[in-house]
Amino acid sequence: MTDKVVITAALAGSWTFRSSNPNVPHTAKEFVEEAIRCRQAGAAIVHIHARKPDTGEPTTEEKYLRPIVEGIREKTDLLINLSTGINLKFDPEERGRPIRIFDPDIASLNPGTMNFCLYDFKKEEFSMDEAYLNPFSLTMDFAKIMQQKKIKPELECFDIGHVTNTFWLLRKGLLDQPAHYSFVFGVIGGIDFNLDNLNCFRHAIPPGSTWQAIGVGPACFPTAMAVAIAGGHIRVGLEDNIYIDFARREKAKGSWDQVEKAVKIAQMANREPATPAEAREILHLPKRST
Amino acid sequence: MTDKVVITAALAGSWTFRSSNPNVPHTAKEFVEEAIRCRQAGAAIVHIHARKPDTGEPTTEEKYLRPIVEGIREKTDLLINLSTGINLKFDPEERGRPIRIFDPDIASLNPGTMNFCLYDFKKEEFSMDEAYLNPFSLTMDFAKIMQQKKIKPELECFDIGHVTNTFWLLRKGLLDQPAHYSFVFGVIGGIDFNLDNLNCFRHAIPPGSTWQAIGVGPACFPTAMAVAIAGGHIRVGLEDNIYIDFARREKAKGSWDQVEKAVKIAQMANREPATPAEAREILHLPKRST
Amino acid sequence: MTDKVVITAALAGSWTFRSSNPNVPHTAKEFVEEAIRCRQAGAAIVHIHARKPDTGEPTTEEKYLRPIVEGIREKTDLLINLSTGINLKFDPEERGRPIRIFDPDIASLNPGTMNFCLYDFKKEEFSMDEAYLNPFSLTMDFAKIMQQKKIKPELECFDIGHVTNTFWLLRKGLLDQPAHYSFVFGVIGGIDFNLDNLNCFRHAIPPGSTWQAIGVGPACFPTAMAVAIAGGHIRVGLEDNIYIDFARREKAKGSWDQVEKAVKIAQMANREPATPAEAREILHLPKRST
Amino acid sequence: MTDKVVITAALAGSWTFRSSNPNVPHTAKEFVEEAIRCRQAGAAIVHIHARKPDTGEPTTEEKYLRPIVEGIREKTDLLINLSTGINLKFDPEERGRPIRIFDPDIASLNPGTMNFCLYDFKKEEFSMDEAYLNPFSLTMDFAKIMQQKKIKPELECFDIGHVTNTFWLLRKGLLDQPAHYSFVFGVIGGIDFNLDNLNCFRHAIPPGSTWQAIGVGPACFPTAMAVAIAGGHIRVGLEDNIYIDFARREKAKGSWDQVEKAVKIAQMANREPATPAEAREILHLPKRST
Repeated sequence: MTDKVVITAALAGSWTFRSSNPNVPHTAKEFVEEAIRCRQAGAAIVHIHARKPDTGEPTTEEKYLRPIVEGIREKTDLLINLSTGINLKFDPEERGRPIRIFDPDIASLNPGTMNFCLYDFKKEEFSMDEAYLNPFSLTMDFAKIMQQKKIKPELECFDIGHVTNTFWLLRKGLLDQPAHYSFVFGVIGGIDFNLDNLNCFRHAIPPGSTWQAIGVGPACFPTAMAVAIAGGHIRVGLEDNIYIDFARREKAKGSWDQVEKAVKIAQMANREPATPAEAREILHLPKRST
Repeated sequence: MTDKVVITAALAGSWTFRSSNPNVPHTAKEFVEEAIRCRQAGAAIVHIHARKPDTGEPTTEEKYLRPIVEGIREKTDLLINLSTGINLKFDPEERGRPIRIFDPDIASLNPGTMNFCLYDFKKEEFSMDEAYLNPFSLTMDFAKIMQQKKIKPELECFDIGHVTNTFWLLRKGLLDQPAHYSFVFGVIGGIDFNLDNLNCFRHAIPPGSTWQAIGVGPACFPTAMAVAIAGGHIRVGLEDNIYIDFARREKAKGSWDQVEKAVKIAQMANREPATPAEAREILHLPKRST
Repeated sequence: MTDKVVITAALAGSWTFRSSNPNVPHTAKEFVEEAIRCRQAGAAIVHIHARKPDTGEPTTEEKYLRPIVEGIREKTDLLINLSTGINLKFDPEERGRPIRIFDPDIASLNPGTMNFCLYDFKKEEFSMDEAYLNPFSLTMDFAKIMQQKKIKPELECFDIGHVTNTFWLLRKGLLDQPAHYSFVFGVIGGIDFNLDNLNCFRHAIPPGSTWQAIGVGPACFPTAMAVAIAGGHIRVGLEDNIYIDFARREKAKGSWDQVEKAVKIAQMANREPATPAEAREILHLPKRST
Repeated sequence: MTDKVVITAALAGSWTFRSSNPNVPHTAKEFVEEAIRCRQAGAAIVHIHARKPDTGEPTTEEKYLRPIVEGIREKTDLLINLSTGINLKFDPEERGRPIRIFDPDIASLNPGTMNFCLYDFKKEEFSMDEAYLNPFSLTMDFAKIMQQKKIKPELECFDIGHVTNTFWLLRKGLLDQPAHYSFVFGVIGGIDFNLDNLNCFRHAIPPGSTWQAIGVGPACFPTAMAVAIAGGHIRVGLEDNIYIDFARREKAKGSWDQVEKAVKIAQMANREPATPAEAREILHLPKRST
């Protein structure tokens, strides 16, 4: 079973708007339907950022997030992964809400700070030049909540040093081992995708850790291919990539469309997608008393 | 054009027999038909070991090899790559014939010695325990012939030290730069496939060199996936792998069947297959006066 | 000459205080005397952060920095490298002064943002939990000044993604190639030292670039050893490390003491220290009309 | 204690003659005296090839080897490591004698075949062009003897694929884990030394294995430096390197001279040499009933 690939579908994110791909879910109903399709396609986990249905603005307000979480729980056996990233403004209250109010199986935890920018290729200039601030104090606060509530942290690293940062959390006993890492490639301000960088990440994490990788935009499927052959787990979805075929600029019909492609990639590497139950074991999710 | 993938189809080899896959070509007619199908599927090069049509035994005798080479030249624009490897017996005469008698565009050149074995997984014992001997003297002799006849050497390395060995040939002026390397993974006695080993090969070769990689058996398509994302060139074919889907133990209908899959892999990495004319440029084939 | 090692002595920095090592220079006279000793020991470059002589507080005020720069220029042939880093407060005015007012041969340029923290090992808690902000806009402003004034940027990278960031500056033509990189290991919030991380840096930079590496604290001499065998350039000095022998907790008598040790390390790797004139060539310093 | 470095002194080898360095021991008395000096300098293990005292010819004859082994056992607490390599002629009888007749703590075991050559830099030609043959059958025979007699194998790998080969021995239960590996750099026909190749070796071996590295000739001390910072164990000695300072072509006064230098290298990396008793634990030597 260790050869199974855990596929996560990141349904919406904070940065993919309908102007870029009209298939981004906004309403709870759309999120649930998209989740069902992803499950059918082979996903074991959905990663969720809620949106305000009218504007598409990202939000963690309970009234928006609750029906999504409950709808997916009711209709599927998918594992639920909520984000504590949300946006670049340093607002611990808003960012922490998904793990304080809800009990997701998994939640993203960002252990590092970096530039987080957008580039306008037509004007050849930066259209956004911000920093994504994750001081240790914030990361440790979120880690404590997750540890208490038995939420598995997905240690989302945009650079190798972010892995180094997690060693301090391990030292302080704020993470349970084996930990689960997520390597993100292709954000402007973070590390880019290539096999040297991937291998560096793989060797940086503590032995026995599990890991997935995320390639943003054109790096999405090349990253999935590398992950498949290197024994990691795959994340795709409209949050990361609006295309199903970047070279032909063909848009994805939904995150499920990319999950289908991820399954084919896994199979080319002689691996099969894990079910949610298998994913629970593979990722060592903490057992909760029911 | 640098993003194009040069796909080589290794049609037969010395070790794939009809008992393993009935689609291995034996006669010149079968070789030519298989070559045409591979060209249609996206291959730019065919790598050829001739066979005695009645027994399937590998051979470099002119009477068997000539009609294959001439048939492929007549019916296709494929680049032709002949082997100077052939078998494990140290017989320079037989091994050198393809480059002495013929003028292939490319020929394999082995710069290193290693064990070359077979393992019987049912009996859990080695069923063949031989060495593949390539002393420097032999490699240098073949290199000289290729340099004189403007045949591009494909430096076939079964281990990292085989790349180190080529530095001596470069030092002695027996190889023209940029050289073309072929990394072989999965022969018992040679290096196995993983991303660390691939990266080590990539960093070992002189800057500006071109390279392809070959994965034997179950390593075939994972290797092709890694090659596609790392900027190398792909080799597939019944010589290396009898399956189209190893996990399901589904046999390939021919080398062309694997070429089709290789094209899909390249496209997932946002690359397209090169034509033979493009391959000639990408691999810096020496220009011959006609 | 390519085998020569360029040794930089970082005389003071912003974070090493006399309470930690009493040999940190404060006055211009002390800086000049320390520079002379470093030159005699084998350094080709001094990296300078000025201090207010009474308090030891880091400063870029002209009245403090000018006599240091002029004194070193008068008494030695050392190349002068000034910092545009200084402190963690985002104050472009103060940080840019060394390259606006002065004409150093080299100046540090930080292309990335990260946490920059201190840890109290006795209390087992962070004693400082800050971010070091280097938005692209600031880095680009400094790069423009350096390009105009022919000051060589030392691209100081605390993480692999900081190298990725420099690709945007290269794209915009704000850096001349071959560029010079500095890999910093061991700042809390940045990448830590090991051979995987060093190799990842080495392969991340554009081919033909020059590079040095800096190991903070106990990583200082292990980093210098790795640099010596990998063909890079060495930086030592009280800015990075207060010890001459960390295992024995023996303090350095000055940056020159560490330069002497760096020379021994270089020689163990069959390399010799470069003179300032050789360093100018090795690092491709831009030629200025005089 | 895991930070301690086990230093092995290879006193003579088969290829270092008195014409190259007059300090190579020939007689049992010389071997024992050299071993004592190496122990005093910091070595925990001596690796021994016996010589015929009159001619210096390598030999495994009992009459030559016994007084060396017994002399060292009597006068020191050094661990004794005997070679099963000896020479390139395929003579299992002679090669196996040291482990059949004696009970060394450790013995070298070669799991791979490669070219093993010498190059005449004045004539720019190969002065020896041989192969070092180690078929699986031979390696497995030796492994069986060692396992029965509780002799720890030092898996001497001249290339990455030689590590791959050991996986077959592990599969067949012929090696006890954690195994101990020895990476050899710089033999002509094998892999050369650089940090990429070293890292590839480090990541190729099973997790938990111990390892040392050997750099031949000018690679000797650079290899020791890399080993020191990467957590491996050091081997030096006249077998590998006749110099104490290659750049200055200064000959070593003995293997002990190089051991002294190795200790300094270890200390620069904040590590201390292990005693023989510590080495026994670090390398997991099998316990023998006495």
